Amino acid sequence: MQYNFSARVRSVESSVVRDILKLTQGKSIISFAGGLPADELFPIDAIREASGRVFSQGPQALQYGLTEGAVVLRERLAARMKANRGIQAEVDEILVTSGSQQAIDLFARALLDPGDVVLVENPTYLACLQVLGSYNARIIPVESDSNGMVPEDLAAKLKEHNPKFVYIVPTFSNPTGRVWSLERRQALLNLCLEHEVLVLEDDPYGDLKFTDNNVPNIASLEGKPEERIVAYTSTFSKTVAPGLRTGWIVADKQVIRMMARAKQSADLHSSVLDQLILGEMLLPEVFDLDGHIRKLSGVYKERMETMASELQQEMWKDAKWNTPQGGMFFWVELPEGLDAQALLKVAVEKGVAFVPGTSFYAGEPNRNTMRLNYSFAEPSVIRTGMERLTDAASEFLGRYSGV
Amino acid sequence: MQYNFSARVRSVESSVVRDILKLTQGKSIISFAGGLPADELFPIDAIREASGRVFSQGPQALQYGLTEGAVVLRERLAARMKANRGIQAEVDEILVTSGSQQAIDLFARALLDPGDVVLVENPTYLACLQVLGSYNARIIPVESDSNGMVPEDLAAKLKEHNPKFVYIVPTFSNPTGRVWSLERRQALLNLCLEHEVLVLEDDPYGDLKFTDNNVPNIASLEGKPEERIVAYTSTFSKTVAPGLRTGWIVADKQVIRMMARAKQSADLHSSVLDQLILGEMLLPEVFDLDGHIRKLSGVYKERMETMASELQQEMWKDAKWNTPQGGMFFWVELPEGLDAQALLKVAVEKGVAFVPGTSFYAGEPNRNTMRLNYSFAEPSVIRTGMERLTDAASEFLGRYSGV
Repeated sequence: MQYNFSARVRSVESSVVRDILKLTQGKSIISFAGGLPADELFPIDAIREASGRVFSQGPQALQYGLTEGAVVLRERLAARMKANRGIQAEVDEILVTSGSQQAIDLFARALLDPGDVVLVENPTYLACLQVLGSYNARIIPVESDSNGMVPEDLAAKLKEHNPKFVYIVPTFSNPTGRVWSLERRQALLNLCLEHEVLVLEDDPYGDLKFTDNNVPNIASLEGKPEERIVAYTSTFSKTVAPGLRTGWIVADKQVIRMMARAKQSADLHSSVLDQLILGEMLLPEVFDLDGHIRKLSGVYKERMETMASELQQEMWKDAKWNTPQGGMFFWVELPEGLDAQALLKVAVEKGVAFVPGTSFYAGEPNRNTMRLNYSFAEPSVIRTGMERLTDAASEFLGRYSGV
Repeated sequence: MQYNFSARVRSVESSVVRDILKLTQGKSIISFAGGLPADELFPIDAIREASGRVFSQGPQALQYGLTEGAVVLRERLAARMKANRGIQAEVDEILVTSGSQQAIDLFARALLDPGDVVLVENPTYLACLQVLGSYNARIIPVESDSNGMVPEDLAAKLKEHNPKFVYIVPTFSNPTGRVWSLERRQALLNLCLEHEVLVLEDDPYGDLKFTDNNVPNIASLEGKPEERIVAYTSTFSKTVAPGLRTGWIVADKQVIRMMARAKQSADLHSSVLDQLILGEMLLPEVFDLDGHIRKLSGVYKERMETMASELQQEMWKDAKWNTPQGGMFFWVELPEGLDAQALLKVAVEKGVAFVPGTSFYAGEPNRNTMRLNYSFAEPSVIRTGMERLTDAASEFLGRYSGV
C-alpha cells in the first residue's frame, strides 16, 4: 500500500534534533530542551475547587459550546486584559483556542494562501515556522537585534513583499528571551499601520517577569480603533497548566469571524470543561491568579539565576548570552564555528539535553546557538545538569581543537 | 483596512440555513435542528468522581501531554474497541482528537492536496463537506440507496477519479439515519482494497442502537492486516458529553504518524484533563459506560417513537421516511417540488426549527428533504414541536396549492 500524504505534511522535515532527543528516552537525562513549566507548582487544589463549581452548574454545562468560546470566560478575559495589559476588547473580538498554538494555526488558516509572505523575527518560535510551512507560506526573516526587529529592514521588507502578516514574540521571546524596546514596538506598529499589514503578537510569557519593568504590549499601543491590525494571543499554559489546553486571541471582529469559521471545521470548539474551570479561576474569590503568577515568577527567577551562575564558569567565557528579564529561556551563542547540534550529541551521552538553535531560524541558521530552559528543573537539578553540560562542552572543545 | 482572507475560509459560504436559524435566537423555539445529545442525561456525577481521581494523581497530570494522546486512554480505548466492536488496534495506531470533527479535519489535512478527489455518500455529514471544501478537495458523490453506496457506481468512480479516500457514515448516518447492509460494507472494503484507496469510517452514533441487530464495522471486517486501508473514528460526544471534546481515530501507523505531525502544528495535543477523566470512566469500577449507553438508547428510542407517531398524522401521508434503528435523526422526504427551506421559514414563525436537507448534498441537492433531530427534546416537547411543524406544513401547503 502506497500512502500518498499531502505536500503540507510531507514538507515538515523529520527533525535531526528530535532524532537525537529520542536517544534520551529511558535514560536518566536532565532536559533543558523542552519549554515546560514547573509542574509541581500547578495550582491543582484551585483547579479542583473550580471544577467542583463547574459540576455544580449541572450537566447542561457540558453540552456542545460556542465555537468562539464560553461567553463567561471571554468576558472575564476581557476584564483581565484591560486591567493588567491595557488591552481593550469586546467579547466578540475574542476567540478561545486550544492553547495559543491553535491561535497561530487558525490565524494562518484564515489568512494564508500558498505563496503568501509572512515576516518573522530571526530566530523565532519553531512551531510557528512549522505552521507557516504547512500553509506553504513564504517565510521572510527580518533583521533583528536585542531590541527587536530593525525598523529600516522591516520597512524595506513590508514594501518589497506585501506580506499577509508579521509574526512576533516581543516579550521574553522564545527562543532568545529578548524584550523589544518601546521604540521598536511603536515603530513596528506605525509601519504596519502605514502598510495596512496585520501583526500577530504572541505573548505566552509576558506575565512571567523578574523585574518591575513594564513595556506595553503592541496591542495596547494600538488602542481600540474601528479596525484593528494587531492580533494578540496568550495562554493559560504557562500561568495555570498546559494540560487544560486553553489559550485565546484578540483581533478585529472580521478576523475573529473568519478564524471561528476555520475553527468550526477544525474541531467545532475547545474543551468546555477546561474553559469553565478557567473562567471560575479568574474569580478572585476562587483563585488569586496574580499572586500565583508572582510566586511562579519568583521561582523561575531563582532557577534562572542558578543557571546564570553556572554559565559564569571559565568554560563558558567565550560564549555570549543575555540574562533573561522573564520567560523561560537562556539563548547561548557559542564561539563561531562551533556547532551546537554536534555538542548536543556529546551532551546526551553525558546525560543532559537542550535544543540547538538551528531549528528556530527561517533561512540560514547560526549553528553556534542553543536554547536552555530553566523553568522546569529545580535548582539542584539545574546545577547537576549544567555540570554535565559544562563537562560535555569541555570534551567537545577538546575533540574540536584536536581536529 | 482591507482584510484579505484565504480562499480556504472565503470558500465557506454564509449559510442560508444559519441565517434563518439566527431568527430563532431569543424566541421560544423548539429546535429539531441541532445534533445535540440530551444534556440532562450527561453522567455528571461519574465525571465529577473521575475528575477527583485525576486530581489525586497530583499536578504532574496536567503537564503538556503527548500529541498522540494519553497512553492510558489509548490503551483502554484499544481494549474497548476490541471487546465491543471487534476492531483490533495497537496504542500507536490510535490518535486522540478534539472530537471526531478534528479526526476528519486532520485526516484531510494529512492526505489532501488541492484538487484531490474524495468520494462521499449523498447526502452526507455537512461538516465533513466543509472540511473537504476547506482543503480544496473535489468532492464526488457516489450513488447511494437505503443499503449504502451502490457498488457499481463506487467501482466506476474509484476507477475514474483515483480518489485519496472514501468518506462514509455507515451506521445510523447523519443525516439519513441509514444503516449499510453487511453486503455493501464488504463490497466497499473489497473495492477499496483492490484500488488501494483509503476509507474513513465515521461512527459517532454506532453505540446508540434501538435493536439487537449488529452489523460489523468496516474496520472490523478488515481485521488487522500489515497495512490498513480503513480508518475508523468515533467520539465520547454522544455517549458521555460533548463538552469533554474527545474523539479518536484508528488508522495505519503511517497515517497516524502523519496526522500527529498535523496535530502538533494544529494544537500540540487535546485537553489532558478531559482525556484522563474519560480514561478513568472506562474503568468499570468508576463508571458503567455500557449500562449508561443502554439507558441513553432507551430514552432516545422513546423520543424517536414519539416523533414517529406524530409523523403518522394525515398531514405527512405523502412524505417518506424510514424509522431509525438508532442514532439521532429522522430524514424526511416531502413530496417532490416542495422546498424544505421555504417550509423552514414558516416553521420558524410557528416556533419550531429543523435543518433542510440541501446542506447535506455534494452537488445538486434534493430540495424536498429535511432532517429532524429527536435526541435533544423530551417527548412532551417533541409532541408540541411536531404539532407546530404539522401546522406550519399545512399552512405552507395551503400557500403552495394557492400558487
